[in-house]
Amino acid sequence: MKKTAVLLYPGFSEYELSVAMSVLMQGHKPVVTAGSSHAPIRGEAGMVCVPDSAVEELDLEAVDSLLLPGCMDIGTVIREEGLLKAIREAAERRYIVAAISSSPALLAMAGVLKGKRYTVGLSEAAMDQLGCFEREHYSSETVVRDGNMITARGRAFVRFGWALGRALELPFEPHWYTEQVAATFH
Amino acid sequence: MKKTAVLLYPGFSEYELSVAMSVLMQGHKPVVTAGSSHAPIRGEAGMVCVPDSAVEELDLEAVDSLLLPGCMDIGTVIREEGLLKAIREAAERRYIVAAISSSPALLAMAGVLKGKRYTVGLSEAAMDQLGCFEREHYSSETVVRDGNMITARGRAFVRFGWALGRALELPFEPHWYTEQVAATFH
Repeated sequence: MKKTAVLLYPGFSEYELSVAMSVLMQGHKPVVTAGSSHAPIRGEAGMVCVPDSAVEELDLEAVDSLLLPGCMDIGTVIREEGLLKAIREAAERRYIVAAISSSPALLAMAGVLKGKRYTVGLSEAAMDQLGCFEREHYSSETVVRDGNMITARGRAFVRFGWALGRALELPFEPHWYTEQVAATFH
Repeated sequence: MKKTAVLLYPGFSEYELSVAMSVLMQGHKPVVTAGSSHAPIRGEAGMVCVPDSAVEELDLEAVDSLLLPGCMDIGTVIREEGLLKAIREAAERRYIVAAISSSPALLAMAGVLKGKRYTVGLSEAAMDQLGCFEREHYSSETVVRDGNMITARGRAFVRFGWALGRALELPFEPHWYTEQVAATFH
């Protein structure tokens, strides 16, 4: 089975990533984590993670999807050409690309959100400052799928994980992550 | 401010830990991750983490609380004397000890759940096989606090994080982790 590549950058949000990664694990989907380099990366809550690969060395032939966590200060990574190039190539190959919280800014900066409905966990001021978003396609929904692109707000991290699992057609048990007995799985 | 020590073991559950760690971050609580050794540890969903400390070297004077994630196969770590010793010492010092999913088994094995109400994410058969639980104090609630001990089922990982933040009297925004507009914060 092809892998999901998980992009890591300093200050990435562990919790925003964690349910999506657990859904992949449930679905026996292999993952490869990719950082700017092979150096350990500290998440925003203090977990120090060793990427399996540097993003420049990622074998995109072995991958069919990307997963991007949010990041306290997305401005620090938004011009990293290695990340943007991987995102562009993945979108050209029609891979599933799932980005949560502030990370849809990386998709917008890479140019792959053009004409797509999306959401993002940034203020209007922050979006204006970045200047890469098409405001007319912004949605106030908390999880949005448009074609191969999945975007979500941070607080929707559980449904974001479910949406990725469904897009990849993986078997998984959504109720691992919710106490709502009658939780709607959508 | 004293730290929360986060115990890590092979196959630890990233998502069960992630909201609790994010709450600590929101509350500006310093954390120190501690493994059996300084070697990187792979979580159950594939995140490879470098512990800040080996558990044997943990300075418990600098700590006021422990956080324990669940683990796919808790049987593999339940006899690790270094972990059990740290748990025993933390309980003797009346530190807050928060354990989710299968990890209350480590508390029971360390002898610190004696006479305490608790919950755990294990089947009755698994509890019987481990033989360390006082069945009469088991609760079917998903988050239980009895004195300094907080235990929770895996699917209650959001409320588990909230409970830890409240026990440590940290300021934090619970709605980062929920889409329920009228979510009861309890």
